[in-house]
Amino acid sequence: MTLAETAAFLAAHDDYCILTHVRPDGDTLGSAAALCAGLRAAGKKAYLFPNPGVTETYQPYIAEFLTPASSSPLYVAVDIADTTLYPDGFSGAAVALCIDHHPSNANYAENTFCMPEKASCGEIIFLVLKALGVAITKEIADLLYVAVSTDTGCFCYANTKADTLRAAAELLDLGADSALLNKRHFRSSTFSRLRLEGMVFSSLRSYHDGKVIVAIVSLEMIAAVKATEDDCEDLAGLPGRVTGNDVGVLIREQENGSSKVSVRTNGRVNASEVCKEFGGGGHAMAAGCTIEQPYEAAAEALLRVIDRYFQ
Amino acid sequence: MTLAETAAFLAAHDDYCILTHVRPDGDTLGSAAALCAGLRAAGKKAYLFPNPGVTETYQPYIAEFLTPASSSPLYVAVDIADTTLYPDGFSGAAVALCIDHHPSNANYAENTFCMPEKASCGEIIFLVLKALGVAITKEIADLLYVAVSTDTGCFCYANTKADTLRAAAELLDLGADSALLNKRHFRSSTFSRLRLEGMVFSSLRSYHDGKVIVAIVSLEMIAAVKATEDDCEDLAGLPGRVTGNDVGVLIREQENGSSKVSVRTNGRVNASEVCKEFGGGGHAMAAGCTIEQPYEAAAEALLRVIDRYFQ
Repeated sequence: MTLAETAAFLAAHDDYCILTHVRPDGDTLGSAAALCAGLRAAGKKAYLFPNPGVTETYQPYIAEFLTPASSSPLYVAVDIADTTLYPDGFSGAAVALCIDHHPSNANYAENTFCMPEKASCGEIIFLVLKALGVAITKEIADLLYVAVSTDTGCFCYANTKADTLRAAAELLDLGADSALLNKRHFRSSTFSRLRLEGMVFSSLRSYHDGKVIVAIVSLEMIAAVKATEDDCEDLAGLPGRVTGNDVGVLIREQENGSSKVSVRTNGRVNASEVCKEFGGGGHAMAAGCTIEQPYEAAAEALLRVIDRYFQ
Repeated sequence: MTLAETAAFLAAHDDYCILTHVRPDGDTLGSAAALCAGLRAAGKKAYLFPNPGVTETYQPYIAEFLTPASSSPLYVAVDIADTTLYPDGFSGAAVALCIDHHPSNANYAENTFCMPEKASCGEIIFLVLKALGVAITKEIADLLYVAVSTDTGCFCYANTKADTLRAAAELLDLGADSALLNKRHFRSSTFSRLRLEGMVFSSLRSYHDGKVIVAIVSLEMIAAVKATEDDCEDLAGLPGRVTGNDVGVLIREQENGSSKVSVRTNGRVNASEVCKEFGGGGHAMAAGCTIEQPYEAAAEALLRVIDRYFQ
């Protein structure tokens, strides 16, 4: 579908239930909530499918959009690349419209509007709402800003394009409170999370002149800072923050004594090959495996494999 | 001066020496280097005053602009709010033109073009170069992107405005390699810095239900991670990253056994008032003092003062 066709479709129907993807992030939730608010402003009935994976941070943005509007709604999927990413609890009913930005979109919906050149789905929803003739309120601008900014790491990730920055500029003009939202999403962490990061960084080990960085997350650390599972998200990227590293390894001690390993590389070392040695796999720059040994032994075993790339 | 007058001034003269401020950051250096490159492209002689405070990160951006063009140049100050911020080694000769964005600009130069509404000086240099008719090359766009992005914490700080994002978008269109520059400036730290941050975060203490966060930087920590003075920059903001805090305190042990204290607040507690009790001062939301006691005793003394605000 084109942008105009997508807007025409939304204008022509009613009773929407908007789906967000499993393990929902700021882009799927901000996009869905903004679309819901916009459809309601356009006189439509709309609500969000209650995605059980929504974390505390994002609850406030969606709270007012959860009341079902209809028992037989038209499903609209937002930022969902394929059906394996449906939210938990979704029946798998036919999806009438999918709005997405993933190049890998599987074209599973009856109608799809995908702009793979966009860094975030929020930018596409912004275009759709304007095409629908919806006045973008401060509330909608805030939700779209959440979507755009979180999917680009506050415009810091490599997916950020000139268009992304222009969309964000327009959202600021429309009242988005970027100072508040940035502080909340990018400049604050729980006390436990920061202390856990602290322990992970303190434990960093450097090999091959800093080309290989290994970090450990032990059960003892997690207990010491009373970290929740939320606090433990996205730890795998931390060792990669050391300047000049080729390989960042994070080893997390498991309850059963084994070690869960994440390997991130810049491509010089094939992360997938390394992890395959231990029965795991993934991509060339990000892979994982589980080693049935305590973390110190697992680190030694991993380093023996990684050493081969530095000879 | 107006923008047009500033461009006309630069077009009418020649032989420029561009000054950057003491403890130079990405904005002053990126702005100065971009201005220098632009003036050279416009057929002028220009070079940067050799600021001895330039850190390793920024050396590559200025290296080619350091050869003196003239023994009696016209001085142009960039991002320098007043004469106390002149770079070390500068004679204090008359400054012919100052281009700045600080609201506090002291109007010390013979001519001043100040746009206090801009988040970065880089945005102003961008306008000046365009007004001069300089073609903005990829090299200049990179330098201006360094200026704009570093002064806004990659568009995350509260000073970021819609105009800032638009300027950045234009720089990306002109070829600025934001992916590379963001990775370098915002997503990588030295091994020592990360380990030091780790120790600081590990040492975080929480009082008054997380409203007050205290962090310690001891000499032992600095020695343990072999941190340089560069690695110790901007530690004062770290305790403030804990969600929901009103007061973030960083206490740094000094060689003579005393404690250097930084207090950052969200305004609920007056940081300057707290520090005044110990002979220090500053602003309502950021202040400092030195306490002639070991860090544990200093922390206790500070907490006794801060406690008054939470009764």
